[in-house]
Amino acid sequence: MIKIGVIGLGRIGKVHLENIQYHIPTAKVVAACSGSEKGFAFAKERGVQKCYTSVQQMLAEVELDAVVLASPTALHFEHLKLLIAARKHIFCEKPIDLSLENVQFLKKELDQNPVNFMVGFNRRYDPTILSIKKQLDQQKLGQPQSIRLTSRDPGPPPMEFIKTSGGLFLDMAIHDFDLASYLMGSEVTEVYATASVFGELPLESVGDVDTAVTVLKFKNKGFATIENSRNSVYGYDQRLEVFGAQGMLSSTNQADTMVSISDQEGVHHPKPVGFFIERYQASYLNIMKAFIKALEQNETPELSFQDGLHSLTLSLAAKKSSEENRLVLLSEIS
Amino acid sequence: MIKIGVIGLGRIGKVHLENIQYHIPTAKVVAACSGSEKGFAFAKERGVQKCYTSVQQMLAEVELDAVVLASPTALHFEHLKLLIAARKHIFCEKPIDLSLENVQFLKKELDQNPVNFMVGFNRRYDPTILSIKKQLDQQKLGQPQSIRLTSRDPGPPPMEFIKTSGGLFLDMAIHDFDLASYLMGSEVTEVYATASVFGELPLESVGDVDTAVTVLKFKNKGFATIENSRNSVYGYDQRLEVFGAQGMLSSTNQADTMVSISDQEGVHHPKPVGFFIERYQASYLNIMKAFIKALEQNETPELSFQDGLHSLTLSLAAKKSSEENRLVLLSEIS
Amino acid sequence: MIKIGVIGLGRIGKVHLENIQYHIPTAKVVAACSGSEKGFAFAKERGVQKCYTSVQQMLAEVELDAVVLASPTALHFEHLKLLIAARKHIFCEKPIDLSLENVQFLKKELDQNPVNFMVGFNRRYDPTILSIKKQLDQQKLGQPQSIRLTSRDPGPPPMEFIKTSGGLFLDMAIHDFDLASYLMGSEVTEVYATASVFGELPLESVGDVDTAVTVLKFKNKGFATIENSRNSVYGYDQRLEVFGAQGMLSSTNQADTMVSISDQEGVHHPKPVGFFIERYQASYLNIMKAFIKALEQNETPELSFQDGLHSLTLSLAAKKSSEENRLVLLSEIS
Amino acid sequence: MIKIGVIGLGRIGKVHLENIQYHIPTAKVVAACSGSEKGFAFAKERGVQKCYTSVQQMLAEVELDAVVLASPTALHFEHLKLLIAARKHIFCEKPIDLSLENVQFLKKELDQNPVNFMVGFNRRYDPTILSIKKQLDQQKLGQPQSIRLTSRDPGPPPMEFIKTSGGLFLDMAIHDFDLASYLMGSEVTEVYATASVFGELPLESVGDVDTAVTVLKFKNKGFATIENSRNSVYGYDQRLEVFGAQGMLSSTNQADTMVSISDQEGVHHPKPVGFFIERYQASYLNIMKAFIKALEQNETPELSFQDGLHSLTLSLAAKKSSEENRLVLLSEIS
Repeated sequence: MIKIGVIGLGRIGKVHLENIQYHIPTAKVVAACSGSEKGFAFAKERGVQKCYTSVQQMLAEVELDAVVLASPTALHFEHLKLLIAARKHIFCEKPIDLSLENVQFLKKELDQNPVNFMVGFNRRYDPTILSIKKQLDQQKLGQPQSIRLTSRDPGPPPMEFIKTSGGLFLDMAIHDFDLASYLMGSEVTEVYATASVFGELPLESVGDVDTAVTVLKFKNKGFATIENSRNSVYGYDQRLEVFGAQGMLSSTNQADTMVSISDQEGVHHPKPVGFFIERYQASYLNIMKAFIKALEQNETPELSFQDGLHSLTLSLAAKKSSEENRLVLLSEIS
Repeated sequence: MIKIGVIGLGRIGKVHLENIQYHIPTAKVVAACSGSEKGFAFAKERGVQKCYTSVQQMLAEVELDAVVLASPTALHFEHLKLLIAARKHIFCEKPIDLSLENVQFLKKELDQNPVNFMVGFNRRYDPTILSIKKQLDQQKLGQPQSIRLTSRDPGPPPMEFIKTSGGLFLDMAIHDFDLASYLMGSEVTEVYATASVFGELPLESVGDVDTAVTVLKFKNKGFATIENSRNSVYGYDQRLEVFGAQGMLSSTNQADTMVSISDQEGVHHPKPVGFFIERYQASYLNIMKAFIKALEQNETPELSFQDGLHSLTLSLAAKKSSEENRLVLLSEIS
Repeated sequence: MIKIGVIGLGRIGKVHLENIQYHIPTAKVVAACSGSEKGFAFAKERGVQKCYTSVQQMLAEVELDAVVLASPTALHFEHLKLLIAARKHIFCEKPIDLSLENVQFLKKELDQNPVNFMVGFNRRYDPTILSIKKQLDQQKLGQPQSIRLTSRDPGPPPMEFIKTSGGLFLDMAIHDFDLASYLMGSEVTEVYATASVFGELPLESVGDVDTAVTVLKFKNKGFATIENSRNSVYGYDQRLEVFGAQGMLSSTNQADTMVSISDQEGVHHPKPVGFFIERYQASYLNIMKAFIKALEQNETPELSFQDGLHSLTLSLAAKKSSEENRLVLLSEIS
Repeated sequence: MIKIGVIGLGRIGKVHLENIQYHIPTAKVVAACSGSEKGFAFAKERGVQKCYTSVQQMLAEVELDAVVLASPTALHFEHLKLLIAARKHIFCEKPIDLSLENVQFLKKELDQNPVNFMVGFNRRYDPTILSIKKQLDQQKLGQPQSIRLTSRDPGPPPMEFIKTSGGLFLDMAIHDFDLASYLMGSEVTEVYATASVFGELPLESVGDVDTAVTVLKFKNKGFATIENSRNSVYGYDQRLEVFGAQGMLSSTNQADTMVSISDQEGVHHPKPVGFFIERYQASYLNIMKAFIKALEQNETPELSFQDGLHSLTLSLAAKKSSEENRLVLLSEIS
């Protein structure tokens, strides 16, 4: 039985806690760390016996095999230093940190204190992505030539969150950048991004945007185009296409039901499922299962620290490109 | 150059006339017969030089290879007797006649005066049906086990038309009965139908209905289910499924464009294309090409008099079943 | 905390047990009854402390509020008599029993010893059906005129099961008959069914069929058409259409992902999800939640004994119609 | 009756000729100019009485109201000078010319000798685009924020054609650039394009590419992303999305039929319709009707010389961006 501590009991922390507690029989959350009474109550109702407000105290008092880090991004750096020092295996929500310097520092720490580290790009474990990746690995398309991701949120997060989140490129598009690289299977060499503010939030005041298109250029001559928006009135839009010499893999949105109604106006289908918690329900469970399995089998998890660093680099490059209105070489970011 | 006379210049007659005149280079409409000045004007604008009100006069004065009969069903019997006697090849709109006795009489006439005779079940020449039939012939499914047709009109015809049309089973469902038999490739043995009046027209007063379901049972153990309605507010609904041991062939409705709009309510697609003239535009041309080609090559057209007789029998059986509220053996109809 | 006993730990019994244990915080399975060691092991791993081979013993030794009856249909009658006598609330898998006489007997018993009784037509709680029912209740279509259900299994059950299951109409189509009645909201007056054997199993030897079409005629002039097959090579086919004066509600199959691949041959989409356990995962949970909620609120569950009796009557009528090759009045079945 | 001369009887010239001859009753092709005997034969069979090899001779001998210019792009410049000098109204296939200098020269000529001039961006008249434009004009989305076009050919043209065509950006993507600008309704300020060669043709040798992505940035803060490929094994891919504050308009590919087959592997749909001649059949007719109508009503056609110049500028900017691997300001192209 793998003993887990969960740090942070916001939306994502809760998802991980429940998944481990109810759906992964070989692991158990034995301690949780949260800043709120509500978090404690949530954890206790699900059988977590020890709750802490201090990560240090939790590490000192409870015997843990691994930690799920779902605290706010701004706290990751401090928490990760503690976890690495304590030699706990780590499942870390994305992004690792907003600062490239910090992430590079942590990388060195990790190299000296090697533990299993998995970064939470759960979408790689979405059944849709698993299916597409499998078919790519089976050479159904040949080498991917052009990848396209559409990723639009049903509404923006609160300004409070945006201020510390790193903005659209570091908080939201980073998922898409990771997926694009993962599916292309090649290194990005150049990034072009352009972005605007169309919604009502005063994003310019915090240097953020709500709508963007990013083009990634890869070493293998392929490219990826990513479209992001925070303001999709028709719901959470998560689509993907991979084009290659032998054809195209394509995924469309999922709705809660396949019910349509035909009337005098036309044929009406329901909107896509709610938001990321609902849309990626299976991914969250799958990625945690993969993390636990890697621990059990003493293997390195698939999504490494390096993957987290790479996508951060892409996000920073896209932000720079958008801000400086020019093509940015990835080699400029370091 | 095949010389054609067209009898009847209602909606369907006009379609046939234009198709021959503009799209079949090896045939030419040289004479037309119509009861209306408008019909004459239409024909003349499209290069038809001789127009008549009398079929007999047209047959006497113009040298014709073949005749397209698109007059009202009630006139078919008289017209067909004249055409057979004159030994003209005949393309006859469906149904041949509403009376089984009349049709059987005409069959004997034809046997004694053999001419090429094609009955206008144009839907067999719809690209959709051609594709499905081809795949069935290629044994993609094995023997069809269950066929399902949905055939719903965007609105009822005027009461005037209904009174003489033979009603839903003889005027409308007859197309579906022909298709079901054609695709099943076996003989119908029994028919069950049930029908209701849901719309606002006083159909009961003329012994008609607006909504029906018919089950055809075939000698090969297969069955077909046909759903008809005159009152489809969402437009002309023309769908088809064939189920067999190896899978299912399925066709859905066509719209004018593949444009959808996603908004706060959902994803909205356009309605199916207008009505039969628009939906079966290609079928009308294809069937006329097949008729002309058969004439040129001196071959018997595919859709024979017998096919017209068969589907009439099915329509009469369905009507009887619905009226007498019982299963009807096809052998009862004769 | 509602204390539940589960009788029968086959596929369905296990589903109910896990749903209660992991997903319904206000209920708990405290005892289970099973004929197999495997069943015991399954239950114990999920925290059920008491396991029995005898229903009587379980009822005698454990304090229970309600029982989930998922034993083989052939045992339902004996088990139900015990449960009613013990005045336990009952969630009973469908069908209640294959014999109309038995079911009518049980009804009298229940009338004398009233307990909450819910019959397990879980599909009514499928998100698809919930959405369709809600829209019907909102008068989106007006009165339903024609309902069509397609229900095809990806493969037949073993002959062993078929022999005691009651066959296609009583075991499989009964779900569809229940749904059709539920959605039409009117009483069935007549039933016509025709059926064949197309697959390789020697079903004729046990009086069963593998392919059928059934037409239900309702008091409100509406009808329903149900297509069933045990041999759908393309997977579990569960579709539904409701046609009415204001339009059509329609549901198509669900696949595991919305991924398609386009290649030289065309555009290829995945098959429907596995089988009923996967397809109706949400329904099984929803119906159990509804049962528990009714117990908590001391209300009569929606799916009553009468509903179980009604659908059994329809199944028997369809079987009779198919066997006697004639339209059957529902009043003949009693 | 508008008297038309057609110059050039390649694929597109033939389409225009037939459309005028058979489908536009108020116009007539009275003369044609072609370099081939086959062209003459084609024209004569369709009732064109005068055929020439010399444009000058045709202009001298035949009284014409307007000319349809469908000669190879390399001849446009000479032909256009003659036509403008002769003060004929002009329908000119795209691109007007590959040289910005030439086009600017012609613009001055036109300003001095004003005639009606329409450039053949027929896709604006595609029912799909007409529907999308209409909905945009109705403010269904608000201002477009992000437009995406996918335009992939089922196979590359011969090297012979490519050498003089201007390449992917000037020959193929120019349609998409025109549509993007048209639908965005704003001026392009910057262009970023990146392109590769993935197919087997030695395109590098002629400075061409077969796969590209282009981002257009507009004055109104919107952007458009265009994906092009010459090598779509799954057929002619023509899709479009417009995203705005109120939702998304989206168009998918059209197939010849709506027939699918479900089998053990999945659900299979047919490929998109053949190529541009089939896909844009309606557009070619619609645009010619619009040209003729403008002539009849003495109005300026919608697609002006300026539109042709604008899209050429975009194509040149995209080519420059791809070649110089940097963002290009539109103001650099002049």
